[in-house]
Amino acid sequence: MKAWEDKIRKVVPYVAGEQPNKPDMVKLNTNECPYPPAPGVKRVLDDLDTSKFRLYPDPEAKLLIKELAKFYNVDEDMVFVGVGSDDVLANAFLTFFNSDKPILFPDITYSFYPVWAELYKIKYETPKLDKNFAMNKEDYYVPNGGIIFPNPNAPTSLLEDLDTIEDIIKHNQESVVIVDEAYIDFGGESALSLVNKYENLLVVQTFSKSRSMAGMRIGFAVGNRDLIKALNDIKYSINSYTLNYPSIIAGAEAVKDREYFEKTCNKIIQTRENTKKVLGDMGFEFPDSKSNFLFATHKNIDIIELFEFLRTKNVYVRHWNAPLIRDYVRISIGTDSEMEIFFKYVKEFMKEKTK
Amino acid sequence: MKAWEDKIRKVVPYVAGEQPNKPDMVKLNTNECPYPPAPGVKRVLDDLDTSKFRLYPDPEAKLLIKELAKFYNVDEDMVFVGVGSDDVLANAFLTFFNSDKPILFPDITYSFYPVWAELYKIKYETPKLDKNFAMNKEDYYVPNGGIIFPNPNAPTSLLEDLDTIEDIIKHNQESVVIVDEAYIDFGGESALSLVNKYENLLVVQTFSKSRSMAGMRIGFAVGNRDLIKALNDIKYSINSYTLNYPSIIAGAEAVKDREYFEKTCNKIIQTRENTKKVLGDMGFEFPDSKSNFLFATHKNIDIIELFEFLRTKNVYVRHWNAPLIRDYVRISIGTDSEMEIFFKYVKEFMKEKTK
Repeated sequence: MKAWEDKIRKVVPYVAGEQPNKPDMVKLNTNECPYPPAPGVKRVLDDLDTSKFRLYPDPEAKLLIKELAKFYNVDEDMVFVGVGSDDVLANAFLTFFNSDKPILFPDITYSFYPVWAELYKIKYETPKLDKNFAMNKEDYYVPNGGIIFPNPNAPTSLLEDLDTIEDIIKHNQESVVIVDEAYIDFGGESALSLVNKYENLLVVQTFSKSRSMAGMRIGFAVGNRDLIKALNDIKYSINSYTLNYPSIIAGAEAVKDREYFEKTCNKIIQTRENTKKVLGDMGFEFPDSKSNFLFATHKNIDIIELFEFLRTKNVYVRHWNAPLIRDYVRISIGTDSEMEIFFKYVKEFMKEKTK
Repeated sequence: MKAWEDKIRKVVPYVAGEQPNKPDMVKLNTNECPYPPAPGVKRVLDDLDTSKFRLYPDPEAKLLIKELAKFYNVDEDMVFVGVGSDDVLANAFLTFFNSDKPILFPDITYSFYPVWAELYKIKYETPKLDKNFAMNKEDYYVPNGGIIFPNPNAPTSLLEDLDTIEDIIKHNQESVVIVDEAYIDFGGESALSLVNKYENLLVVQTFSKSRSMAGMRIGFAVGNRDLIKALNDIKYSINSYTLNYPSIIAGAEAVKDREYFEKTCNKIIQTRENTKKVLGDMGFEFPDSKSNFLFATHKNIDIIELFEFLRTKNVYVRHWNAPLIRDYVRISIGTDSEMEIFFKYVKEFMKEKTK
């Protein structure tokens, strides 16, 4: 042991999906968008003036905030931006979850939540989802230090309807309720419609999925201006300048193109619905996903074997060796032709296994 | 008061230098580099494939790490990168300063240090600099939870020699000692030469000053691989992907061009030495800066008045309304022609005041 080792903070970090980089891979493991970002993104970056890099970027990222506020029809002081939604969520944990009471999130959910809670020494409890992966809203009607859940949930893909969400917010006006909507654009109804009604609601979204910009690291939160102010105070206590210059201008440009955004989401929804049909016909079972991925299991298949088999074919999906979800695999929705390759190998695997 | 307000974390955030954006301004207030980044940066960004934005960036930023390791002649697992050195330092505070003993940093120093300490609830003590702004190294030979200081110090511009630094590291092998070298490339001797000798030394540097890339948000730390591992564990507990794709490729390209880097630093050093001469002739006093700024005072001038006067002329320098340094102004070194404009207005101010 090093002499200084007892003075440092030790954690078990979150493990993100692997990022293989092979020419012919079919990468369906980190819920990225299979389509490029809006054409305007290329346009503004083609005109990028790199001599401006010598200056600090706008710490308030006003250009981006303005477009987001316009797109979502909220005031600019109700929007916060960060380096991907993970940065936004980490800041939100640090800002809003600071009481002696435990925070609440589902037992099966985004596996970063317990990591942030451990890091910042926040007590937490994890109400169980039911056997269909649905939340039992009454589990959240207890004293708590805050509430967070993704909607649709990850990795289950299941969407809770807005009435359920609103009930949870309404029953917890003394806590901040964070709805993590990384996957809301693929057919879900956003809680953004409630931010003017409930001052304890923070909605977090990302550019990494529906806006095809995982590589740029942009996430945002929308909520009551007092929440946003508190979040900004913490942000400015960590790093004054988070989004770099290209992210601010490219992000703003992406938001301007509503038509491209909707077209992209619709293509993914169509491919997802087709994927449900094909996998359903093969005997897979999965919640009725409203996200850009399926969370699938199969009574007659060893899911880990399938996962490993697909890897050998350069097809990457995601598996967690964790209780309750060990028999499931998460499949991101790619292009139609990527899904065809995926189907082909799943069929090949099933044929071999039933020989 | 909002119902949820007692559950949240309240802080007094760091206030960064203002970021005015006027066409004819002379911006000498945030220590940016007056020259553009290395030509290769423009080249790789001209060829940027924006369709890659749909994918997450490499979480390990290997391309950039590799170039930094090569440039500084250290192993790749001795390098950590973050979203500007503020991100690196905030992570380092969270990682390494986690004991019951107070950390130590000088009473006059980078004003972000107490902000991070308050945010993460780290006890701290601030040994006094002497009247020439020098550190008294013996002040740091006491039990502590860690040590951090900038070298050259900010905003004083004063460089401590490497023997002093080494003495402090040597006397504190049970703590992590962080040397914050944001301004080391302007004539100082870096503690990087000591990272293989002392396993408790972390050296932090930035692309925002000598590499002209404040707008890209890139900082890095070099140290013993166990320190870097601990820092990465915390980083991966907050945000898996911090540097975006353009930052990784542009950063790597900037590091490759040693000649441009040295030329830029030398130009700034020359302008700084000339600025010392001109301001000295006008009766200003300042430490013998080894950074890209001067920290100047004048016996016969009201510094706040000068600061305000310059603002009316669109010349921005930095002033802190803080004890001990209220009579000083920090002047970033710009181009020679920017400094000429600055000199002109300072002379104009002095003439008016001595009428």
